[in-house]
Amino acid sequence: MAGAIQPDLDLAASLFEALSRATRRGRGIVRDSYGAGEQAAHDLVRSAADAMGLEVSIDAIGNLSMTLPGRDRSAPRIMIGSHLDSVPQGGNFDGATGVVAGLSVLSAMRRAGVVPDLDLSVIAIRAEESAWFDVAYLGSAGAFGLLDPGCLSTPRSDDGRSLEATLKQQGFDPQPIRERRRLLDPSRIRAYLEVHIEQGPTLVGRGLPAAVVSGIRGCKRFRNARCTGAYAHSGAVSRPYRRDAVAATVALLHHMETVWLQQEEAGADLVVTAGELFTDPTMHGPSKIAGETRFVLDLRSLSQTTMDAVAAEARDAAARISAAYRVDIDLGTTSDSPPASMDSRLRSRLMSLLEHPFEMPSGAGHDAAVFAKVGIPSAMIFIRNENGSHNPEEAMSLEDFAVGTRALVDLLMNFPL
Amino acid sequence: MAGAIQPDLDLAASLFEALSRATRRGRGIVRDSYGAGEQAAHDLVRSAADAMGLEVSIDAIGNLSMTLPGRDRSAPRIMIGSHLDSVPQGGNFDGATGVVAGLSVLSAMRRAGVVPDLDLSVIAIRAEESAWFDVAYLGSAGAFGLLDPGCLSTPRSDDGRSLEATLKQQGFDPQPIRERRRLLDPSRIRAYLEVHIEQGPTLVGRGLPAAVVSGIRGCKRFRNARCTGAYAHSGAVSRPYRRDAVAATVALLHHMETVWLQQEEAGADLVVTAGELFTDPTMHGPSKIAGETRFVLDLRSLSQTTMDAVAAEARDAAARISAAYRVDIDLGTTSDSPPASMDSRLRSRLMSLLEHPFEMPSGAGHDAAVFAKVGIPSAMIFIRNENGSHNPEEAMSLEDFAVGTRALVDLLMNFPL
Repeated sequence: MAGAIQPDLDLAASLFEALSRATRRGRGIVRDSYGAGEQAAHDLVRSAADAMGLEVSIDAIGNLSMTLPGRDRSAPRIMIGSHLDSVPQGGNFDGATGVVAGLSVLSAMRRAGVVPDLDLSVIAIRAEESAWFDVAYLGSAGAFGLLDPGCLSTPRSDDGRSLEATLKQQGFDPQPIRERRRLLDPSRIRAYLEVHIEQGPTLVGRGLPAAVVSGIRGCKRFRNARCTGAYAHSGAVSRPYRRDAVAATVALLHHMETVWLQQEEAGADLVVTAGELFTDPTMHGPSKIAGETRFVLDLRSLSQTTMDAVAAEARDAAARISAAYRVDIDLGTTSDSPPASMDSRLRSRLMSLLEHPFEMPSGAGHDAAVFAKVGIPSAMIFIRNENGSHNPEEAMSLEDFAVGTRALVDLLMNFPL
Repeated sequence: MAGAIQPDLDLAASLFEALSRATRRGRGIVRDSYGAGEQAAHDLVRSAADAMGLEVSIDAIGNLSMTLPGRDRSAPRIMIGSHLDSVPQGGNFDGATGVVAGLSVLSAMRRAGVVPDLDLSVIAIRAEESAWFDVAYLGSAGAFGLLDPGCLSTPRSDDGRSLEATLKQQGFDPQPIRERRRLLDPSRIRAYLEVHIEQGPTLVGRGLPAAVVSGIRGCKRFRNARCTGAYAHSGAVSRPYRRDAVAATVALLHHMETVWLQQEEAGADLVVTAGELFTDPTMHGPSKIAGETRFVLDLRSLSQTTMDAVAAEARDAAARISAAYRVDIDLGTTSDSPPASMDSRLRSRLMSLLEHPFEMPSGAGHDAAVFAKVGIPSAMIFIRNENGSHNPEEAMSLEDFAVGTRALVDLLMNFPL
């Protein structure tokens, strides 16, 4: 197939607008994984697919496939997708952009009367964000039978309900997760393509509308770290008697920043973040030494070796600092996402389709990492985005969206490579 | 007057028990300043005073005086007291011990038919803790006309209601505070005596039941410190672009610990505490760089010079770190309590009345500091207490209480010195 098909930007604009209207709560977007917000987004996207006459199917754990049938329906299909959930008080574009991009491409092909060689499926994936269930990629990893069945007992961070109970409540079936049963067969997927906003400031800084992703950073996260000391009067306890949970936590996090700087100097790829840190509002006080903190320590790198080494150093430091400050720092277990490679042929084809070719690593994890992990050739396109992601101020222009989505449609119209 | 009067320990035991029963909320004690918990404590104490036949009066801002009339009613009286409020989730003994000690002494004198030379008044002082209104010593400083009238607009930390509205709601009168009008005349008070639990581990460590207080540490507190950065995805923003509020706050607090160590090495008296520190639970997330923290920075010393120097260094460091981390650390204003000296004659007399004489500074502020500030000879007795104070696990034995309270009654029975 060949021809200069333009993505359906009217559809894209109206979908972004409808998604914002349906799922904005106060300043930010709330599309809670397997909750009302995510479901509202799925309902909107499904309506659009129905209106376009796509074949719609929903798998046992809620992933939504919307297919433009190809000439050879027995051939492995190409999937284009991303997730529709968001972090609490997130933005309108993280995740949704990839699904909207896919639909705007299929809509344009449909209108132009293009019948692709292979089935083209847009997949709206469930529950990519780990903010709600402390497990990343529930939808995509679940579809490939990769989830540890133990994850079914993970409580949702806000209402405490287990993943299993939540799935059932939403009308889905936890059984495939329990049996590690595949809902998607990797051998039946020719390629996976994901458009996503860049979640950092690189493209803004460089003045570029889009980039091809070279690889995806893995993540090793101490999600439930905790420091336990002893509450005491802030004026009346001298240093040798203190068991100050804040002081010990500050010492640990300061040490981890030092480790980060050393790794950077040695040329390693790494970011270290404590994005949640808090004393107990029911127990702390302005004239009390804090007896407890809870925090998250999030390590990300393109190198598994780097993450493992830094996590080990965090555990060592926690033990040393616990002894020195007479507290108990329990970092807990890590949740882990390995780094992922993108397909070199898809990458170079996408590079050739950009007016200003630019390639960069993804610092955040994406469903594409799961597709890559099961051996499906995968690629990602980043779209320039102001103000970062995972916050209400995400801002992507429709012009930049068009640049990235045009590369996607050009790739599809000229497949196989 | 002379004689071996023993404090009324049965009364003390029953009052401590009744106070615990009336004001325990879950694990800890809640006697909220000018709230239901403090009022319940005042009601209990007043009932005991009524039953003992003491003269009871309540001043315009709620301080409760319970007087055993002396032979010479025109002579300046001796006051024995402490406060009845507690921090949120505090213990049963911080504050209440001094009021119960005074009543157990007056009860014993009354039963023994002792008529003192001077009026002896037990004063149950309002609102000593700054946890509720961010102003310490509201009751005692208010009684001496020392409060800045601006404090009337201070909101209560939990319900946000102003001090003025709260006073009126409780049936008290903010007018004397507005006019800086004295409710107590320092020239009419011969001495002020306060029994209080030790709030640190020194007496436990030394195996002593009680101590005489040599002086009271002042406090300089940044109550509403705040660091504002920018929320962003934790994996996707490299170091030079980050505006990480947690990282900057950790850098500041780590620096202040270094300053503390330097001051200690130079021989200065100082404690530094951040007892509240938290990211915003409605905005933070495990995969987000935190865009905001709030914290308290509490500095205490026997030396005003030391506190001023360390506070200035905190402001300098906040400015440097704000620039380095691309955030805005706003420490805000301080609330200040100056250090206070105890009367040397009262101190040495009390020392002579202890079987194991021991003197130590008070790390925490007390109403006695206010009485000392207006020129009233003041003294304090510390009682051994397990587990520190400002927490539910405060533990004072009645035996240790008896040792300290016996020194108090011995002092009173042999007054003037």
